[in-house]
Amino acid sequence: MNKVAIIGIGHVGSTVAYTLVSRRICSELVLFDQKPKLAEAERNDLEAGQVDHTGFVKITANDESQLATCDLVIFSAGDISILEHSDDRFDELTYTKTAVAQWAPKLKAANFKGILLNITNPCDVITQYLQALTGFPKERVLGTGTTLDTARMQVAVGHYLNVAPNSVQGYVLGEHGNSQFVAWSGVHVGGQPLATQLSPEQLAQFEVDARQGAWEILSGKGYTSYGIANQAAHCAAAILQNTRQVLPVSNFDETVQCYVGHPAMVGAAGVLQDYPSQLTTAEQQKWQTSIDTIKHMYAAI
Amino acid sequence: MNKVAIIGIGHVGSTVAYTLVSRRICSELVLFDQKPKLAEAERNDLEAGQVDHTGFVKITANDESQLATCDLVIFSAGDISILEHSDDRFDELTYTKTAVAQWAPKLKAANFKGILLNITNPCDVITQYLQALTGFPKERVLGTGTTLDTARMQVAVGHYLNVAPNSVQGYVLGEHGNSQFVAWSGVHVGGQPLATQLSPEQLAQFEVDARQGAWEILSGKGYTSYGIANQAAHCAAAILQNTRQVLPVSNFDETVQCYVGHPAMVGAAGVLQDYPSQLTTAEQQKWQTSIDTIKHMYAAI
Amino acid sequence: MNKVAIIGIGHVGSTVAYTLVSRRICSELVLFDQKPKLAEAERNDLEAGQVDHTGFVKITANDESQLATCDLVIFSAGDISILEHSDDRFDELTYTKTAVAQWAPKLKAANFKGILLNITNPCDVITQYLQALTGFPKERVLGTGTTLDTARMQVAVGHYLNVAPNSVQGYVLGEHGNSQFVAWSGVHVGGQPLATQLSPEQLAQFEVDARQGAWEILSGKGYTSYGIANQAAHCAAAILQNTRQVLPVSNFDETVQCYVGHPAMVGAAGVLQDYPSQLTTAEQQKWQTSIDTIKHMYAAI
Amino acid sequence: MNKVAIIGIGHVGSTVAYTLVSRRICSELVLFDQKPKLAEAERNDLEAGQVDHTGFVKITANDESQLATCDLVIFSAGDISILEHSDDRFDELTYTKTAVAQWAPKLKAANFKGILLNITNPCDVITQYLQALTGFPKERVLGTGTTLDTARMQVAVGHYLNVAPNSVQGYVLGEHGNSQFVAWSGVHVGGQPLATQLSPEQLAQFEVDARQGAWEILSGKGYTSYGIANQAAHCAAAILQNTRQVLPVSNFDETVQCYVGHPAMVGAAGVLQDYPSQLTTAEQQKWQTSIDTIKHMYAAI
Repeated sequence: MNKVAIIGIGHVGSTVAYTLVSRRICSELVLFDQKPKLAEAERNDLEAGQVDHTGFVKITANDESQLATCDLVIFSAGDISILEHSDDRFDELTYTKTAVAQWAPKLKAANFKGILLNITNPCDVITQYLQALTGFPKERVLGTGTTLDTARMQVAVGHYLNVAPNSVQGYVLGEHGNSQFVAWSGVHVGGQPLATQLSPEQLAQFEVDARQGAWEILSGKGYTSYGIANQAAHCAAAILQNTRQVLPVSNFDETVQCYVGHPAMVGAAGVLQDYPSQLTTAEQQKWQTSIDTIKHMYAAI
Repeated sequence: MNKVAIIGIGHVGSTVAYTLVSRRICSELVLFDQKPKLAEAERNDLEAGQVDHTGFVKITANDESQLATCDLVIFSAGDISILEHSDDRFDELTYTKTAVAQWAPKLKAANFKGILLNITNPCDVITQYLQALTGFPKERVLGTGTTLDTARMQVAVGHYLNVAPNSVQGYVLGEHGNSQFVAWSGVHVGGQPLATQLSPEQLAQFEVDARQGAWEILSGKGYTSYGIANQAAHCAAAILQNTRQVLPVSNFDETVQCYVGHPAMVGAAGVLQDYPSQLTTAEQQKWQTSIDTIKHMYAAI
Repeated sequence: MNKVAIIGIGHVGSTVAYTLVSRRICSELVLFDQKPKLAEAERNDLEAGQVDHTGFVKITANDESQLATCDLVIFSAGDISILEHSDDRFDELTYTKTAVAQWAPKLKAANFKGILLNITNPCDVITQYLQALTGFPKERVLGTGTTLDTARMQVAVGHYLNVAPNSVQGYVLGEHGNSQFVAWSGVHVGGQPLATQLSPEQLAQFEVDARQGAWEILSGKGYTSYGIANQAAHCAAAILQNTRQVLPVSNFDETVQCYVGHPAMVGAAGVLQDYPSQLTTAEQQKWQTSIDTIKHMYAAI
Repeated sequence: MNKVAIIGIGHVGSTVAYTLVSRRICSELVLFDQKPKLAEAERNDLEAGQVDHTGFVKITANDESQLATCDLVIFSAGDISILEHSDDRFDELTYTKTAVAQWAPKLKAANFKGILLNITNPCDVITQYLQALTGFPKERVLGTGTTLDTARMQVAVGHYLNVAPNSVQGYVLGEHGNSQFVAWSGVHVGGQPLATQLSPEQLAQFEVDARQGAWEILSGKGYTSYGIANQAAHCAAAILQNTRQVLPVSNFDETVQCYVGHPAMVGAAGVLQDYPSQLTTAEQQKWQTSIDTIKHMYAAI
């Protein structure tokens, strides 16, 4: 029996809910939104949406007394509409930090003992802010980080090589934002390092493709939902089923003392171990730039 | 290898796409929308959204030359925003019949040989209009009909009896709209007929719940998506995997000479057989009223 | 986090294990067999058999200290080889009751608080014997009953009508054995009662087909595994995910005071409610004969 | 619509069948065995075993006229009982080559145009023999190769590091047999190369574990089934859904002119591309030894 709460049922939160229900990743789901009628409408739609499945997830809405017994809380509050007039996740910060300030005390007061998974942007900064305001142990607070960026890199390389994206192994590291970068030195297909097979120009192009993906989707549909929901559901499954999978989530790096997207083993207790990346000098510089960006943004809260 | 096209990538069409991709119901997917940038954005988001799945669906957008080789075309064009100022699916007709008039000749010209599944409302009328304008054999054209309404009835009864909705067996019949009704005489739970166990008042209340569901979701989130996408995906799977399942789709009833939601066996060739319902006299009257409503609406095109 | 133990890792037990792992119905699995090397070998094979799945089930073998923390224990001990020289499940009794006598005290001593699902034949008798020897509340002990027989009836009817077996709604009732019968008065396809559509001779033939299925499989492969494993996994999912589905499991009928296959709502607490069947006079006689058979066999223990 | 035939319905073949049906990887399945009653019994058991699933796979047995229209034929003939008195896959050869000689002409005569996936051991040799006797293009004939050995290596490393086996990236190369080896220079966890993190002794131990796994399972249960069925199903899905995934299948290596387990991209057309491994000098020697072993064995046919 796994119980999950989702805070913020906008396009992202509701698509995460649908994905969890469709894949039966949880057995109970609690929806929260600042518009209670919206959470109730999604509850209603999701319930009809799971008929004919083998299982059935119990779904409720707006009941804060349930937070105490959740195994996982997914934080997806935020007003994406601000991004229609901006191309930087920094601008989201002003809007989303307020949601953190509203919910962190509630989670604390509820004596919530589970894992807190943040999707809200700027992801690394908000994840850190959630940890700071709740005071929960760092291993119990994580963000989706560069999981989606990694997926987009896999798709970009997969298209170019006409190979399944799943067979492209490697990571996008750093900020879930403009300073992110692909650690090409560690990307392999079929056991072959891509860095020795393709030109630096081609690799740079993939990076552009991966980073631009989000903005193209934003301009076409006004928000992104399926890519991020798939990754959030993947993280949720790792936590709820204690799979101990390695995922490039936003997790606290002791060396640099901040939350940042890099590989970590994820299970029922949250982040079980992180993996320092073996980077080239050029990649190390990008890593440092990304760390600086995150810290700079965090200082602005 | 199953190839599916979705025409109209609004909230419903894109959620159907995500559901087909998540459940790997098809191996190829083609997205069409009057806003080509939107179809492209959804393609992009859906591609990232399937990384880490075992399979991989090939997704393209806006390429009409692919219609000829599709096994299934799902028609979900329409402007739901009209319903913000209305509570009747009739009002959608004016908007959606234009989309039919635009796409039917294209499907005909492409010499499309597959199955045409309509979701666009008013579902029964638009399904019939699609059949009329394409001239495709009636068994190759069907609509989602009362599949969603049946699911909502199952949820309503399931909540009341605290039983899994899947274990509530029976059908909502008639128009996918206000004149629909539950054929209570055939609804069973655990082999027991509900009509002899619950009061007529209670049954009437379920019917209100089932019918009202859609409007409550509409008022809370502005559209419905998960419930209908789940049913459309279910119909798609029956067709693409030739499962020969019985589903209350909108299919042509020879006796009353119109498309209307009632049980039919669905497989690779479309509607393989329909099942005339054994109704009480009171139910028979509701059936007639629903038929009249559909015919009246169709005459208005 | 759901933890399941399987006692008896023969063909049935190991196929149940594979099915639970493949469908990720549990997160932990403990295997027990009187041949500890066999349980260890299956553990080893099952572990390799789940690589490339999204999740990962933790599997251990032969550790009785884990019984205390299991949510579900599946009892599938028994020596099917006896049936090579017999065509009656009665003969299995002598062999399987010993296994019950061995394990019931262990479950009791472990203070096991979960649900006990029996597959071992004769299913109804062994389920009742398990309940008697453990002293567990009757709602926490159930058997797979006529779930498999119902599936076989659905397949037989499905073949005849060329319709999906899932769309054949109804139940086989009574003993999981030779005295079972189909309650034809409640079998529907597409809302139509089969009893009014097909001749009594045809219905009788389906019954023969359903009952004979097991023996034909036995003679061809020496045991049955996939059909029963699928149903056991289905029951396990209903329990572990608290789906509250109605399944024709072997559950205690207060009226007749014995365990017998008939519809019951199944969830996390085991059997939540049973549904008395509305039978014709002829069916009522078959029901009574089946009850007598079970009681006669139970008296022989 | 995907149609698959399985030739040889022993423990492996029938478990592959159950896996394909459970995961709905195909829509039609044809079973062949030298004991027609066995194939018929498995057909019967598998049919009952898929009731309550959403889809339904059409299953037939023993009808050779269906080979012509299959998209994939899985070859799993062979008498594993010989291995009870042997610890070398070489000994299987005498038994299995006869099955190849029997079936290759039938596939040719049927003008089979699909993909031929071999499981029968010794895998590399039998795959090559199948290609030689059918004369099918090399890219249309492949074997499960070191997919299972790779999975076992992932499990062994996963146990040691307490990480999900899926997160262990790398390959076992060479013969599916005693001369296989792990290409440690390319094995990564969380982006970190294992070869620089663990001692050569530890790595050697994993290799022993991976290679020994099969023999331990054999001695405990008399055959292996779940591990190999999972990998065969994975290969089948890559082919039938054209996923273009990279898998260490047995495929023809132009450089060494034989079939041998090494990474290849697998899709609807079979082997689409293979990936030469970047090996250390020591690994290169093991690769050569494995090639020699395979060629020596093939020469013995």
